[in-house]
Order: sequence, then structure tokens, then C-alpha cells
Amino acid sequence: MSGINAVTTNAPKGGVRYERVTVREDGPVGLSPIYTGICGTDRGMVLGHLDFSYNPDKQDFIVMGHESICRVTSADSKTGFREGDIVVPVVRRPGGCINCRTGRQDNCSDGKKHEAGITGMNGFMRESFTDSPEFLVKVKDPALARVGILTEPLKNVVKVFEVFETVSRRSIYFSEDSTYEGKNAYVIGTGAEGFLFSMMASEYGFNTSILNRHPIDENRLKICDAFGMDFVDSSKGIPDENVDLLIDTSGDPATLLNFIRRMNYNSIAVMFGTNGKAPPADFTGKDIDHIVERNISLVGSVDAAKVHYSRALSYLSRWNSMNAGALSSMITDEKKPSDVSVFTERNPESIKIALDWS
Amino acid sequence: MSGINAVTTNAPKGGVRYERVTVREDGPVGLSPIYTGICGTDRGMVLGHLDFSYNPDKQDFIVMGHESICRVTSADSKTGFREGDIVVPVVRRPGGCINCRTGRQDNCSDGKKHEAGITGMNGFMRESFTDSPEFLVKVKDPALARVGILTEPLKNVVKVFEVFETVSRRSIYFSEDSTYEGKNAYVIGTGAEGFLFSMMASEYGFNTSILNRHPIDENRLKICDAFGMDFVDSSKGIPDENVDLLIDTSGDPATLLNFIRRMNYNSIAVMFGTNGKAPPADFTGKDIDHIVERNISLVGSVDAAKVHYSRALSYLSRWNSMNAGALSSMITDEKKPSDVSVFTERNPESIKIALDWS
Amino acid sequence: MSGINAVTTNAPKGGVRYERVTVREDGPVGLSPIYTGICGTDRGMVLGHLDFSYNPDKQDFIVMGHESICRVTSADSKTGFREGDIVVPVVRRPGGCINCRTGRQDNCSDGKKHEAGITGMNGFMRESFTDSPEFLVKVKDPALARVGILTEPLKNVVKVFEVFETVSRRSIYFSEDSTYEGKNAYVIGTGAEGFLFSMMASEYGFNTSILNRHPIDENRLKICDAFGMDFVDSSKGIPDENVDLLIDTSGDPATLLNFIRRMNYNSIAVMFGTNGKAPPADFTGKDIDHIVERNISLVGSVDAAKVHYSRALSYLSRWNSMNAGALSSMITDEKKPSDVSVFTERNPESIKIALDWS
Amino acid sequence: MSGINAVTTNAPKGGVRYERVTVREDGPVGLSPIYTGICGTDRGMVLGHLDFSYNPDKQDFIVMGHESICRVTSADSKTGFREGDIVVPVVRRPGGCINCRTGRQDNCSDGKKHEAGITGMNGFMRESFTDSPEFLVKVKDPALARVGILTEPLKNVVKVFEVFETVSRRSIYFSEDSTYEGKNAYVIGTGAEGFLFSMMASEYGFNTSILNRHPIDENRLKICDAFGMDFVDSSKGIPDENVDLLIDTSGDPATLLNFIRRMNYNSIAVMFGTNGKAPPADFTGKDIDHIVERNISLVGSVDAAKVHYSRALSYLSRWNSMNAGALSSMITDEKKPSDVSVFTERNPESIKIALDWS
Repeated sequence: MSGINAVTTNAPKGGVRYERVTVREDGPVGLSPIYTGICGTDRGMVLGHLDFSYNPDKQDFIVMGHESICRVTSADSKTGFREGDIVVPVVRRPGGCINCRTGRQDNCSDGKKHEAGITGMNGFMRESFTDSPEFLVKVKDPALARVGILTEPLKNVVKVFEVFETVSRRSIYFSEDSTYEGKNAYVIGTGAEGFLFSMMASEYGFNTSILNRHPIDENRLKICDAFGMDFVDSSKGIPDENVDLLIDTSGDPATLLNFIRRMNYNSIAVMFGTNGKAPPADFTGKDIDHIVERNISLVGSVDAAKVHYSRALSYLSRWNSMNAGALSSMITDEKKPSDVSVFTERNPESIKIALDWS
Repeated sequence: MSGINAVTTNAPKGGVRYERVTVREDGPVGLSPIYTGICGTDRGMVLGHLDFSYNPDKQDFIVMGHESICRVTSADSKTGFREGDIVVPVVRRPGGCINCRTGRQDNCSDGKKHEAGITGMNGFMRESFTDSPEFLVKVKDPALARVGILTEPLKNVVKVFEVFETVSRRSIYFSEDSTYEGKNAYVIGTGAEGFLFSMMASEYGFNTSILNRHPIDENRLKICDAFGMDFVDSSKGIPDENVDLLIDTSGDPATLLNFIRRMNYNSIAVMFGTNGKAPPADFTGKDIDHIVERNISLVGSVDAAKVHYSRALSYLSRWNSMNAGALSSMITDEKKPSDVSVFTERNPESIKIALDWS
Repeated sequence: MSGINAVTTNAPKGGVRYERVTVREDGPVGLSPIYTGICGTDRGMVLGHLDFSYNPDKQDFIVMGHESICRVTSADSKTGFREGDIVVPVVRRPGGCINCRTGRQDNCSDGKKHEAGITGMNGFMRESFTDSPEFLVKVKDPALARVGILTEPLKNVVKVFEVFETVSRRSIYFSEDSTYEGKNAYVIGTGAEGFLFSMMASEYGFNTSILNRHPIDENRLKICDAFGMDFVDSSKGIPDENVDLLIDTSGDPATLLNFIRRMNYNSIAVMFGTNGKAPPADFTGKDIDHIVERNISLVGSVDAAKVHYSRALSYLSRWNSMNAGALSSMITDEKKPSDVSVFTERNPESIKIALDWS
Repeated sequence: MSGINAVTTNAPKGGVRYERVTVREDGPVGLSPIYTGICGTDRGMVLGHLDFSYNPDKQDFIVMGHESICRVTSADSKTGFREGDIVVPVVRRPGGCINCRTGRQDNCSDGKKHEAGITGMNGFMRESFTDSPEFLVKVKDPALARVGILTEPLKNVVKVFEVFETVSRRSIYFSEDSTYEGKNAYVIGTGAEGFLFSMMASEYGFNTSILNRHPIDENRLKICDAFGMDFVDSSKGIPDENVDLLIDTSGDPATLLNFIRRMNYNSIAVMFGTNGKAPPADFTGKDIDHIVERNISLVGSVDAAKVHYSRALSYLSRWNSMNAGALSSMITDEKKPSDVSVFTERNPESIKIALDWS
């Protein structure tokens, strides 16, 4: 039987299959995934909600998967990699714009980039594939062979904090002692991205709260404790304090606006989550007043560059050594790749579901 | 008869009087206004719409006026000023926060600053007053004795472009030839601030359009021509092009959101205008998608620092020498200070109304 | 007689001829110089001192000239230019490195760029030539047809101040009132670049001194007065004050080090002038101490990008309207292109020599 | 017998004593050192080489010591600290300048700050002392109770990389894939600071070499291996490659200049080490040429802010968990505080000497 096993969909129509596919490739590095992760984008594609996703040229399907940790199975000696190396492949591939041409396809200026497993390029949920070395990030810490699957979602967080550092230079943002101590960070959403944003805010020294509109489970509370974050059930009220850094992973207009009204002078709100189907909310003249009079910045941010994958690995390495149990418990479920029901069923206690390809 | 003539209101209740007042002061520099300007904030105070305005301590009134160009009438030799110097006084005065303590009260972190003629400090619409030299900006170009009244509104523009330069560093924003040529700037609103923002965008090299929801008069069109801006009557449709820099002086949620949907990758929207009474508009999930997926930044900006007053004077000087007629025609009306009807009546062809104190 | 008249040298050997040359070109914009300027680089080439200069491929000569102001003689309508437009052509042309590919060949990372009239590309001292529109900067102010020849040297100054603004962000550099008032700028050298640097420092609000090791002539003193700079004859002693911004146009090690010992906390020294033949000077352990303990930055800067040419034109326009006589008197000599003796003879009162091609 | 045991000198005269002293203090947090570290500054003071050091007001001695890790022995509940907490006290204390007033006394603008154990303030080499909470950095990772003594030297490194990130924005510094891979960092000096700079350069992704003019011992080589640095014995020749980041911890003019001649386009040299007694070296016209034509930046950097202490602790925590043995072997010697011979004798294999106060 020819071909290899892969998880596929037909973008943007949706559906999901575990099937044998044949895809021609000729990259100088051969790879096999160890784990691939599933996130909201994958679910959205399967449900046919992501209008912007599309199959690769001349294919009536796309191999899914952009979160992964892989093992090198073969490599030309000039690539800088060798068999057995553990790597994370970069998701977004450059087009021809000025940002793409400088390794910053995350800031693509014309939309002509591609994304593995999402837009016009086969993803990583398949027994084997090949790639070019410039798109592979080496994992040096062997302890990350499993939690390293969080590199891809964490790289988004690393970029957001780079954007935060750039934008916050418009005034003196830090506290009187040069640190972020005494500053409040609120992260909306208790999914994997919400937790990774919270961990980073905590790392920076913010008083960090992670919020959701309902109580959370014990596993999530344990992670909060381990990383020094507070959980706030916003359905029961929000503390009466100013927010200096707001990060939204929900994409919900009403939720976002509700917190923008709490934002402090010189504060920064990061819009990361998207949910095109969310109901609209009233944006008022008073909201504009609040943003103007307080010199507030709101920044959208998507994807990240190779440098952010590298730094994400450094953070994971440290968090893993400090709080191994807590970081590891972010991966709540391990499934077989053939178990495609995980794309459509949802357990509220799941944080990150990993498919085990080993 | 003791006291001096002044234009006053009772903040935040409103009303306006030209009356004799006595205000104790002891600054080392004596000043008399040549011209004072009127803007939307002044009108809002007179109408009692500005809840945040308040009288100085132990006064049941506040002298109005924050836009002005003044003549020094007396000065201690140690102040660096001397009789006859022309100056623009700084509006906002520092509180004790970290930004105020570094000369950047425009970025006040706790709201404890004061603003001449608006919040707790008497303004410049009075026959004479005194001030400290650190709050006076010298006007070196004698040709600016009249159009120099635009320094105060223009300083806001200068700060906004400083913020723009900081925030735009989050990606490569400029064009392939290192300039802003080929980039589109849209400025919403055809008041004085709208025009000053447009002139600056044009100065930076943007293809600049100034927009309103109705046709504009001949004087305004003449200014557009002189400074190379296009006028767009948005009620008749908007050009089908991406917006790289959006500046809103309307404070109207519907207008702002309408244009945010046109914003390009890596673009920046500046929120400057405020209008708390404006009707709300729908902020949708798709709007959030658009902002996130394109790495768009939205920044509120208020006031400016002394350094921006200085730079504003440089720009005025050049624009005045290049387009003296056009810049001068921004001041559409000259009135006597006693003619307080100008605060409540409105001529749609007015751009900037100046009170002549000489 | 075929060919066109041009000023040429044989790089890097030197010599200078006014002769007829034939150079094949096919740019879409036809150009004729109005004026070309002469600077130290041109003189150095003629003397055979510039080892790094070289002829274009397959030529045994190079047309000289990188400072110019030109008139468009013909232009394809798609170029955005038309006959009669006045332009300044960009000197440096991109290679393939990451900076060159983003319009910043001034920051070329591998040295593979070219420079008109210096390294491998014919310059502008010829009756006519052609170019591509992306390398032409339009001169909108007709009053600049002569002093616009200063655009090319001034663009270097504009870039240096961009670098200054970036580097000075490593601490709070500005004064307590947010301006540069009270800060001292010292510019070493009274040539054209020295004066242009001084004018810009003055524009920024620095107390600006321009220095040389001997008295200066009346014309130079007049320019100092017009732009508010102090002249310091350093052979008679230097004021006992700290230097916050030092700009060297001499390239002389002893002079540079002498002033570095005067530099203030958080100050910045710009190295712009070069003189490979200058005698060495003692760099001591105490010099290093001084630089380290005061967080001092020293930055080399060469060339500038198209955006800086545009901004240079804005500054020239304003300085010209404010101090027309003074700016114009920077051009001390006008000569015929055939008068090649100007490359080797030197009048100490000359600031900028212009060749008149009209 | 009254007083407490302390290591003292008489600044700037020198000498060293372990003696009983009585110093009045009234900070709200009581502290005892666990370890204090010795560096070149301490040795310089004992030798009487540091002219800028001075005793506290009304004292004829100064308690030495600025590198330390301490235990809280008592704390007012409002301080945020409690008995048993492990902390690192900040060395430099603010004066009144604009940088000091914003928590950045490391960038003091007027030299009026104080430094514990060096300039006008008693240091940490004494059985007990008190301090204010704003100058104490909490050590959260209990594994750092010993290697945490490297926090103080490492905080200098963290600041230098902040300066590097600011200054490097003057052009595109990073490689084509957005990382620092392929860039060469050279660190001059194999003392504790040299190693910490090298570890950080390696962390950033540079090909990192640490250099000295003679072979190094086995312990040092082991650390190089663990952190992926190359050792270069510069007496035997230097690899023929460009240097993108040069960090000097020697303060030696000849060494510094020798490597500046190797620096690449857009590269950055950091001057950190000081040695006022080092012999001068020739700074030539060609050196200036090299710095100018390649847009090179040279930056002095001293001390660091509280935020850098916090980040230093994060790095130590990770490096300790990844390479516990290698990091720990940076502390080559543990001595009793009474053993003051360590200030004057020197073992070439020593990297960091710790005094054990427990």
C-alpha cells in the first residue's frame, strides 16, 4: 500500500480524515513528528469555519497540523542537522513582501505567505515529511521532547511581548523601581494560549490574573498556583483595580470592551484571539474618550518569527525545570492520530490535546 | 475698577462670561496674550458637556483658554526671557507621577496633572497673567505672531507622529525605497486638527486624504490644494484602497470602525478626537479578526510635551514660508474677546476662531 | 563629435579630466545636472588617496560626482516624473544584502553596494545621463534650485540624527522639560558638513558650538550668527563644560579623543569624518574608564537612505526661507565644469564649490 | 564586645581589615549575608587604585562588598518580605537626576548616586545590616542560594544586552531568518564577567568565542563546553572571521582596538571592563575609517537597574537547571570572611571567590 498516513481536511469546506496520502516533497531534511498538537484553528478548519484556509495547489485536500515536535530521520550533512535531532518546524513560510524577505513573514505586508496545515501548504500531521533547514528550530533540551509541543503556541506569546516592549516605549511604562512590579496583567481565556500568556506575564513580574466567565477545574488551578497567577471567575465580578496589560485570547468583542473600560493610563491591550462568529458589542464614544485621554494602545498580533520559536524553547526549558509537573499537565490528553473524533468532541477540562505519532 | 478682563466659565456647569476677575499670581514672567484660539474643548466647557473640567481651588470660576500666543511684558533676567519676546505657554502642568517628573505630563500616569483653562488652573483668555519660564516656548520666527496660534493644536500632531514612529517599529512599515511614498493616510475630520494632521501626513510623504461626510467649502479646498491633500466626501463613497495610517479627529465610533475595516497589514490607527455623546456602533468579531490577522495597532493620544511645541513651531515656520496664504487662511475668524457668542454659535465655514487681545 | 562632456578620474589612481565620454545607459528618466558639488571625497579621488574607489566594469575611467541637483529632460509617463522636474539622485545603489533589499543600502551589511561617482558606477558630473525613478527625489520647492545642492551632504546629517534618536533611547537623554535645551552639542570642523551638522543640532535645540583649530573668516561667522551657533577656536582653549552630543567631521584621532574626555554622562559621539592619513593618537585606559563609567556611546555613520534626502529637502526649504542669505552663502564658489583646477587648489574661505552645468 | 564583624577598607587609600564595627541603620528589613562575592573592584579598593571610591559621611572606613546573596532576618509586614526570604540587594542607590528619579540610577546623569561598598555607602560584607524593600530583589528559586551570588555580576550583562537591543535597531542587525544565528560574538576576558557575557551571547544564539592571551585551565574549558562557547587563545592567532558583537571585559586599549579592526558592518562593541592603569594604544585614522564606513557602534555600559537583577535571576535559574555543575563551578573558592588575604593574593584558576557568612 503506497503513501503515508496523514490527518487531512478539505479546506475551507471542512471535515477530517485519517487516510493514506501521497505528497511529493524534496526538502534536504527528512522528518517524523513525535507529537502534533491540536488548537482552535484545527477545529475551526474541520468545522468549515475558516474561510481563509485553502488546499495546496493541485490538491483536493490539505494535510493538517501546525503545532508539532519532530525527529530528524535523515539529513544532508550541509544542513546543520543530523539524524535523531529534535526540531520544531516553523509554521509560516515567506512570500515576497518586504517583511517576508527579512525573515519576518509573521508581519507579512501583503498576505502572500503560506501556513503549514492551514493555507496552501501541507501540515505536520503525517508519518513523515521533508523540510529545509532554515525553517527548523533545534530543540537542545532533551527534557522538552513532549512539552516542546507548546513551542508553537508559546512563540506567539514571545512575539506579543516583543510588540509590547516596542509599543510601551511611547511613555515610561515601568514602575518607579524600573520593574513591572505593581503592574496588573489580565489575560482573558483559560485555553493553552491563555495559560502561556499568563506564565509570561508572571515571568515579566506582573501581578497576573487569568480570567474566564465560569469556575475552572482543579488541574487548571494547580497550574495557576505553580506559576503564581490568580484565577478570576469574571461572572462573579472583577477586582476593582486598573489593568496595565490586557491580553485577549477570546476574540469576543463584548469581553474585550468590558475590560478596555478598566484600562489604566499608558496601558496596552493585546488582541490575539479571533472568533469571527462572536456577537458584536457596543463600542461607545466613552470608550474612545477612555482610550484617547489615557494614551492607551491596542495592538493586534498574529504568528511569530523563527527567533521567537528559539526563545520559546528557552522559556519552556526553564519553566519545565522549575515546575515540571505543572507545565506537563498543560498537555491533558494524548490520542492516536487515527482518533479524529478529538477534532469535533470537546472536554472542558482539556487544555492541550497531543497526537502521539511515535 | 480693579481686576482684569477675562473670559470665564463655571466648570463643569458651563456658561461663558467676559468679566473682570482678580487672580493672585506670582510667576517670574509677565505675559499678555496676542491671540487666543477657540477649539471644541472650549465649546464643550461652555455647553457644560465636559464632566472632567473643574475650577481652580477656592474659585467659583475658571479663566478659559489653552490655545494662545503671548507677548512677554516683564521678565526677571534670570528667566532667559525679556520684554517683547513672543511665546506659547504650555497647557498641561505636571503632577507627581513618573512621567510628569520627566517633563512628560502629556503621558501622566495617574491623572493628577492640571490643564490651563480646563482642569483646575486658570487659562490664557485674560488681559495678563504670569508664568514660570519652564512652561514657555519661545517663538523665534516673527512671521508666526498670528498663525503661531496653531502651535498648541499642532503640538498634538507632532506627538502623534512621535507615537506613530515608535509603534511602527514593530514591523517594517516603510516602503521598499525607505520612504512613506505609496502609503495612504486618511484623516477623518475637516476641523483645525484634521487639517494639521493632514499637513503633517503630507509632509511625511503619505498620499494624504482628508475626509468628511459632506462637501466642503472653497477655503478648505484651497488649503487642500496648497498642501497636496485630497478631499474625500465619504458620503459619496470611499476610494477602494488600503489605509496605512488612519487618524480620527471625530471621536465617532461608527466612522472609526468603518475605516478600521479598510486598514492594511501593519497599519496604524490613531484615535485623537473625542465625543462622549456620539452614538455607539457595532464592534464585531470580524473587526477583531481584521486587527489581529493584519498586526494592526490602534493608539489613543492626548496632549503633547514641550519638545513638541518647539517642533510645531518649526513646522509652522516652514509651512508659513511655503504656503503663507494657505496656512493663514486656517484662521477664518478674528473676534473681540468680549464677543462671547462665538462659543455657542457655529459657522460651518469656520476653521479656527481667534480672539484678538492686542 | 560623439559623446558628452564629463569630469572623470581613473579610480583609484587619481587625476582629473574634463573630456568627452560615451557611456551606454537606458534608464527611463533622462536628466541633466543643474549644479554638481565638490566635497572631500572628490578631492581624495583626484589625489589618488581613496583606495576603495574603483571604475565601473569595463571602463578605464569613472565619471565623478555624487552631489548634484538635476533637471528631468525626458521621462516615461509611468515614472511619476515629467520634463522640467527638479530632482536629486540618490548616490548609493543597493546590493543584495538584507539592508540593501529594504531600501537601506546606507546600512549595507556586506559592502556589495555601489556609489555614483565613487565605487563602480558613473557619477553625475556629465552633461546628461539617465536613471530609474526609485533613485530620484523630487525637489518641490523651486527656491531650492541652487542651494538644493546641499541635499546630498545634508542627508548624511538627517541619518545621523535618526541614529542619535535611536541610540539615545538607552537612557533618558533629554532635559527635565522634555527638550534638548541646556544640552551642549560640539561639532568639529567648519566645512560644509560641519555647518550642516551644526544647523541641525541648533534646530533640535542644542546649545551648539562649531569648532576649528584656527580663527574663521567673516562669511562663516555670519552663517554661525544666522543659525545661532557659537564658533570656538579650539587652539585658544575650550569652554569648561560637558559635551552631550559630539559630532566629528575631521576624522582626526587626536581631535576626537581630546573631546571624548569632555563627554557627559549618557552622551553620544558621532564619527562621520574620515581621514585615513591622519596621525594616530593615544587611546588610554582612562579613556575607556570615562566611556564605561558614563554610559557613553560612540557611533560611526556613513551615507543615508532616500527618506533622508526627502527630509533634507524639507530642512533646506525652511532654512532657506528663514535665512536665505546665510544658507546661500554656504555655496562660496561657482565654477565651470571644465575648470578642473578646483579639485586640487584650495581656498580656505571656500565652503561648498558648485560646478554650474546650466 | 559591641558592634558586628565586617570587612572594611579606608577609601580611597586602601588596605583591608576584618574588624568589629558599629554602624547606625534603621531600614525596615533586617538582613544577613549568606555569601558575598569578590571582584576586581574590591581588589582595586584594597590596593588603593580606585580614586573615585570614598567612605560614607563621618566614617573613616567603608564596609566593603557589593556582590551578595542575603537572608531576611526580620521584616515589617508592610515591606512585602518576611523572615527567611532570600534576597539580593541592589548596589547603586539613586541621587536626584532624571534617570535616578525613574529607577534607573545605573544611568545616573550627574554622578550623584551612591554604591554600596564603593562610594559613600557601607557594603554587604558584615554580619548584619538593614535595608529598604525597594532595593531588595527576591530570589524565588531556592536552588540559587549559592550561585545566586552571580546575580550582581550577571545583572550588568542583562543591561548590556538591553543596550545592545536598543542600539542594534539603527539597522537590520539580525540574520535573514530573524535570529542571531551565523553572527559571531567575541568576549574578551575569562573572568567571571567574561564568562557571564559569553553565556548570554550563547543564549541569544551567537557563535560565541571567549578570548584570552594565554591557555586556560580545565575548569574553564569545562564551562565553555557546557555552554557551547569556543575558547580562543589569542596569543596563537584569531580566526579569520568578522565580529558582529564584541564585548570587552579587559579595559585594555590595545586589546580592544585590535578587535575593533575585525568588526563587521553594523556591528556593536561593548566596553565594560575598566583598567585605568593599562598602557595606551594607537588609535589611527584607519580605525576611524573602519568605524564610520561600516556604521559601527561602540557603547560603554556600567551597572544595571533592579529589573536587570530580576532577569539575571531568571537566567541563573535556567542555566543552573540545565548545567548545574558548570554554573556552580564558576564559584571556584569559598573562604571565611576573616581570611582577608584573598583580596591581595591571586590564584589564576580562580573565577569567583565567595566569602561564606553562614
